[in-house]
Amino acid sequence: MSNSFGQIFRISTWGESHGGGVGVVIDGCPPQIPLSEEEIQIDLDRRRPGQSEIVTPRKESDSCEILSGVFEGKTLGTPIAILVRNKDQRPSSYNEMKDKYRPSHADYTYDAKYGTRAWHGGGRASARETIGRVAAAVVAKKVLAQLYPGIEILSWVQSVKDIEAQVDGQTVTSAMIESNIVRTGDPEAVGPMTDLIKMMRSEGNSVGGVVECIVRNAPAGLGNPVFGKLEATLAQAMMSLPATKGFEIGSGFGGTQLTGAEHNDPFYMDGDTVRTTSNRSGGVQGGISNGENISFKVAFKPTATIMTEQQTVSSQKEDTELKGRGRHDPCVLPRAVPIVEAMTALTLCDHALLHAAQCGSSQAS
Amino acid sequence: MSNSFGQIFRISTWGESHGGGVGVVIDGCPPQIPLSEEEIQIDLDRRRPGQSEIVTPRKESDSCEILSGVFEGKTLGTPIAILVRNKDQRPSSYNEMKDKYRPSHADYTYDAKYGTRAWHGGGRASARETIGRVAAAVVAKKVLAQLYPGIEILSWVQSVKDIEAQVDGQTVTSAMIESNIVRTGDPEAVGPMTDLIKMMRSEGNSVGGVVECIVRNAPAGLGNPVFGKLEATLAQAMMSLPATKGFEIGSGFGGTQLTGAEHNDPFYMDGDTVRTTSNRSGGVQGGISNGENISFKVAFKPTATIMTEQQTVSSQKEDTELKGRGRHDPCVLPRAVPIVEAMTALTLCDHALLHAAQCGSSQAS
Amino acid sequence: MSNSFGQIFRISTWGESHGGGVGVVIDGCPPQIPLSEEEIQIDLDRRRPGQSEIVTPRKESDSCEILSGVFEGKTLGTPIAILVRNKDQRPSSYNEMKDKYRPSHADYTYDAKYGTRAWHGGGRASARETIGRVAAAVVAKKVLAQLYPGIEILSWVQSVKDIEAQVDGQTVTSAMIESNIVRTGDPEAVGPMTDLIKMMRSEGNSVGGVVECIVRNAPAGLGNPVFGKLEATLAQAMMSLPATKGFEIGSGFGGTQLTGAEHNDPFYMDGDTVRTTSNRSGGVQGGISNGENISFKVAFKPTATIMTEQQTVSSQKEDTELKGRGRHDPCVLPRAVPIVEAMTALTLCDHALLHAAQCGSSQAS
Amino acid sequence: MSNSFGQIFRISTWGESHGGGVGVVIDGCPPQIPLSEEEIQIDLDRRRPGQSEIVTPRKESDSCEILSGVFEGKTLGTPIAILVRNKDQRPSSYNEMKDKYRPSHADYTYDAKYGTRAWHGGGRASARETIGRVAAAVVAKKVLAQLYPGIEILSWVQSVKDIEAQVDGQTVTSAMIESNIVRTGDPEAVGPMTDLIKMMRSEGNSVGGVVECIVRNAPAGLGNPVFGKLEATLAQAMMSLPATKGFEIGSGFGGTQLTGAEHNDPFYMDGDTVRTTSNRSGGVQGGISNGENISFKVAFKPTATIMTEQQTVSSQKEDTELKGRGRHDPCVLPRAVPIVEAMTALTLCDHALLHAAQCGSSQAS
Repeated sequence: MSNSFGQIFRISTWGESHGGGVGVVIDGCPPQIPLSEEEIQIDLDRRRPGQSEIVTPRKESDSCEILSGVFEGKTLGTPIAILVRNKDQRPSSYNEMKDKYRPSHADYTYDAKYGTRAWHGGGRASARETIGRVAAAVVAKKVLAQLYPGIEILSWVQSVKDIEAQVDGQTVTSAMIESNIVRTGDPEAVGPMTDLIKMMRSEGNSVGGVVECIVRNAPAGLGNPVFGKLEATLAQAMMSLPATKGFEIGSGFGGTQLTGAEHNDPFYMDGDTVRTTSNRSGGVQGGISNGENISFKVAFKPTATIMTEQQTVSSQKEDTELKGRGRHDPCVLPRAVPIVEAMTALTLCDHALLHAAQCGSSQAS
Repeated sequence: MSNSFGQIFRISTWGESHGGGVGVVIDGCPPQIPLSEEEIQIDLDRRRPGQSEIVTPRKESDSCEILSGVFEGKTLGTPIAILVRNKDQRPSSYNEMKDKYRPSHADYTYDAKYGTRAWHGGGRASARETIGRVAAAVVAKKVLAQLYPGIEILSWVQSVKDIEAQVDGQTVTSAMIESNIVRTGDPEAVGPMTDLIKMMRSEGNSVGGVVECIVRNAPAGLGNPVFGKLEATLAQAMMSLPATKGFEIGSGFGGTQLTGAEHNDPFYMDGDTVRTTSNRSGGVQGGISNGENISFKVAFKPTATIMTEQQTVSSQKEDTELKGRGRHDPCVLPRAVPIVEAMTALTLCDHALLHAAQCGSSQAS
Repeated sequence: MSNSFGQIFRISTWGESHGGGVGVVIDGCPPQIPLSEEEIQIDLDRRRPGQSEIVTPRKESDSCEILSGVFEGKTLGTPIAILVRNKDQRPSSYNEMKDKYRPSHADYTYDAKYGTRAWHGGGRASARETIGRVAAAVVAKKVLAQLYPGIEILSWVQSVKDIEAQVDGQTVTSAMIESNIVRTGDPEAVGPMTDLIKMMRSEGNSVGGVVECIVRNAPAGLGNPVFGKLEATLAQAMMSLPATKGFEIGSGFGGTQLTGAEHNDPFYMDGDTVRTTSNRSGGVQGGISNGENISFKVAFKPTATIMTEQQTVSSQKEDTELKGRGRHDPCVLPRAVPIVEAMTALTLCDHALLHAAQCGSSQAS
Repeated sequence: MSNSFGQIFRISTWGESHGGGVGVVIDGCPPQIPLSEEEIQIDLDRRRPGQSEIVTPRKESDSCEILSGVFEGKTLGTPIAILVRNKDQRPSSYNEMKDKYRPSHADYTYDAKYGTRAWHGGGRASARETIGRVAAAVVAKKVLAQLYPGIEILSWVQSVKDIEAQVDGQTVTSAMIESNIVRTGDPEAVGPMTDLIKMMRSEGNSVGGVVECIVRNAPAGLGNPVFGKLEATLAQAMMSLPATKGFEIGSGFGGTQLTGAEHNDPFYMDGDTVRTTSNRSGGVQGGISNGENISFKVAFKPTATIMTEQQTVSSQKEDTELKGRGRHDPCVLPRAVPIVEAMTALTLCDHALLHAAQCGSSQAS
């Protein structure tokens, strides 16, 4: 079950970076949702390698095939299987990794757990695994749009190392974010961020940063206390992504610097709607959305693969050294943006269907 | 399933702050584990109200009763049901809350979701809900101790507002932490933290902070990629606790300020053991523990209940004001320490049994 | 998870026949459902021992207490915990069973699996475990009634050993079934069945039979292919009951004696409703209800506890003999009737909420 | 989750009879298990159409491709995705079914539930769906063989309509069963059964029967009371198969004709092993295997597709008539044999890993 996510709208991803391909099975999708491979491809293209000069040059078209669950252009309510073949595989690039653990990668821990690993590539720990999530999230977004017209999920690069973007979550648009290869929401930050990433790559080094995500026009009522609190599920979703080290909702760690009197979000009536004058809660109170923007941040560490010599050990348990090879992102942030959006959509879609199941009939009355 | 946690060692908690009581059912516990109510009581006492001058004065002995699953002092392998009665209930303190939503509490969102709420107290959103978790975790810790002798889970208050403790995670002991009512690991910080909390209470205000947790002598191999990555489950576990706003593992958000060359943890051999010279990974790589200390932080917001007048709305959807009443913690951190430990134990125990299930036989060979 | 049933409306039962009590936690129940202990007690009384001269004389009032999840007489949407204390315990009756395995009981297998067992009584394998199911099913029936007014679940004793009742599933009523202590739907069979059970008891012997169940006014559309087919979930539900050995839906094993031309259920229009002229499908086609009566049978073996000397082995693994003692039902069928109804209600309720989750919005359009 | 089965060794199947193909994802498989496409193909060939003159002539090679989870011939511990393409599709054969519901098929119920269906073929309700189960079961059998050397799962056709085979479950072999196209274990029954099936086909009619299954050299201790009782999981597994109408374990419905004194299985010591002199329990007591042969029967109804005119209704809800077309099995029993074995293997494998998780460490001590 470790490779499944969601209780009603449930995805199961599979696949290694090298091998037959990667994919996903979606179970529990509502029927009669229009769905095409072209729609899925749009988000896969936002995630795929080789899309710009600041990401890995691995050449993968990441073309998807819907194998089941869709008939005459609409979902059947049965499992939707989606397949993306691996194409541009270069296992030989990994020959040295066969016997040496790359620092801060999953090589050693997979060996420690399973006694084996797919060494010619990142295997299951590769970010290629997220293809299935992105594909499934296209479906999730369509379900959400049907349930909650106007709901909008937007992520952007909030910082690269110490370069911080100035973004207004209330007004930033998808067009603004997609207009630059860094996928930040601040036009002023594009240049410095791009330059820093390029410099890192030229040095064989890497860099991390923070992705921010906002959900606008979210309904009140999503989230299932106590272990399925909305922020708990979002935290699990985000921390399940490769390279993530932290998650904050609303005021986050910074909120610990305020007193209760400063931190509380006062309620007020905006016409018939209950609103809060501030949003340090991040749109979630007691694990349930309150109708304000859902707002959170995710920390991504600098890419573990660097091109300089590093101290490590061999699988024969001897000290040795290793220099990174292969094609890698000097900064995962630009490609992480659609992935964070995807996990957000999957989380909300499942919570929306759970909410309909438990509270749908009582609210109708 | 929202009130259940874990796949093998699975707990289901229930109960509101006012009403018959709170409790937990543990399913999937290994048989033949010695277990007594007295052992469970020890941790419940660390969590209970009224234990010191800086926590809520609500008088609850929180005495537990084991209703099933234990026979002649040992677990049977069948579900263990544990009950704690609510005693010191004062629903009248909440009369005003019946019609007014307390800011940054769950009052409004529960109403929005369920169309009802247990208004005479915090209901299910009360921190009393965590009693079941703490009780179950006593069992989890015994299972872990049997599987991994020497494993040690320690939490402490790392900061209260802007007062930061200086704690060495490698050497801090349970005795040091339990020796002071704040439950910090830094003797120098006890005084300032205590003073701040008392001042906040006297002002009718509140304060938050950060709890840090370390797991020492953890085995390599725990965690189940991809959605069950160890840090993903820990993040879900911690963000399911009341008042949490952030989670960081290892380098966390601070790690985004480093380059890959600075951030990577070099491997080296320490006798027969693979070790890392630094631990920015926080003991987890690719979602699986690597044998180093598992190390993470959790941000707790300032308590939402404050004793000053606040702007809010009524359940009749009119603007109004509300002043906090009732007995509350001016700072949840001291009582959060055993709860963070509890969720860590529950997470690790379940992962340990999952690991035994999937990889136990292959490792034996 | 072995002690939980259902995906949305999820129950977790706990408890041994001797010890603190037995109970259930219901998670995922819709909010705002009126619920009282008195309502639950009605079905518990139909299940409890000592209710008539043909069942076990163990004196248990089986009084239930709702510990959580209900406020001001209505469900909150939070977990509902229900407790029934064990009262009339006579562990001394079981002294001999401490060291000897009762034939066709669970004594040996529990020891083989867990290395321990609650020997002073049937432990977890006791039919007392079903109390939690019956209590939870009262809630499930209320949810079903709200979703599908007119839906009716009726079980009765169809046969005791070779005495077969003549019952018309279309017209039999609850009043007819409850009017006799055997709980059969055929007035002619009451006498012979009662006499047989009494004779068996006087001989220290026991007897089994078949319970039939029908669901009238069930909606079309319930059931989730493929592993959650309605008949698959019903089969699991029924075979999870103590003493069950077989499950049939519709034509069952007898249906294998027909050809396809004889077995198929022709469709016809009954006004606006699609109906079938026969119902060998038992109301389910392709795992989904078709709107006809859902109809199935469950085989219960003769009670394993008999009062005559039997060959067995000791826990020290030596051949020995054992004579049954304690208070037991010479025939479980009369008390099995409410339990079969309970599991049917739990199964349908969960499927109804699953159906609302997946297909609710598409049908609304 | 409706298309997933198992808690640890968890399979998720997908696919319709017409479309891209069918397949399965296996999560939770132990690592380092040798696995090849050739091994999987062996059982797929036992299941595939066109294998003999008494099954459907649809021409499908059912060649499988392992897409992930296997590296250098061994399992990785990561999800194993297996794909079988649909080849010999003839959607035009189904043109009439587009608007007419085939009696006793899933056409109407899928429409009633989902508001749509894959009408050019049986869609998800087709027996092609079982391909994924059979493929996954090959892996499950390898895991079982590693955990319990000598364990043997054997199914055979016990009856076709009123022709009953005489088979000794203790001595029947796979070779005997596979030696005839009916897959019965009784050489005397082969001729009559074959003749009956051929006659039915020539008449455009169909026939059903009973498959029996035995597990030899099963360990004691498998099964997880109460909802995960071994017989409950087996019942769910079998009743999730297309065309099944009944399930019996051990004495089954026939056992209700015995008294307790006749029905109980006396224990005796066979060397160091606890055995029973009879096996009316079917190898399971209290939901846990007792080390005797696990023995059960499954009723399969006559194939719903027949070639004679039948009364039905259209999707426009008008009375009409329909005559079966397409390529179908006049009797599903011969091909059901490997499928029953497959579901048995999947059930036991999951229970074996669950048992290792919960009881593995306590038994080691």
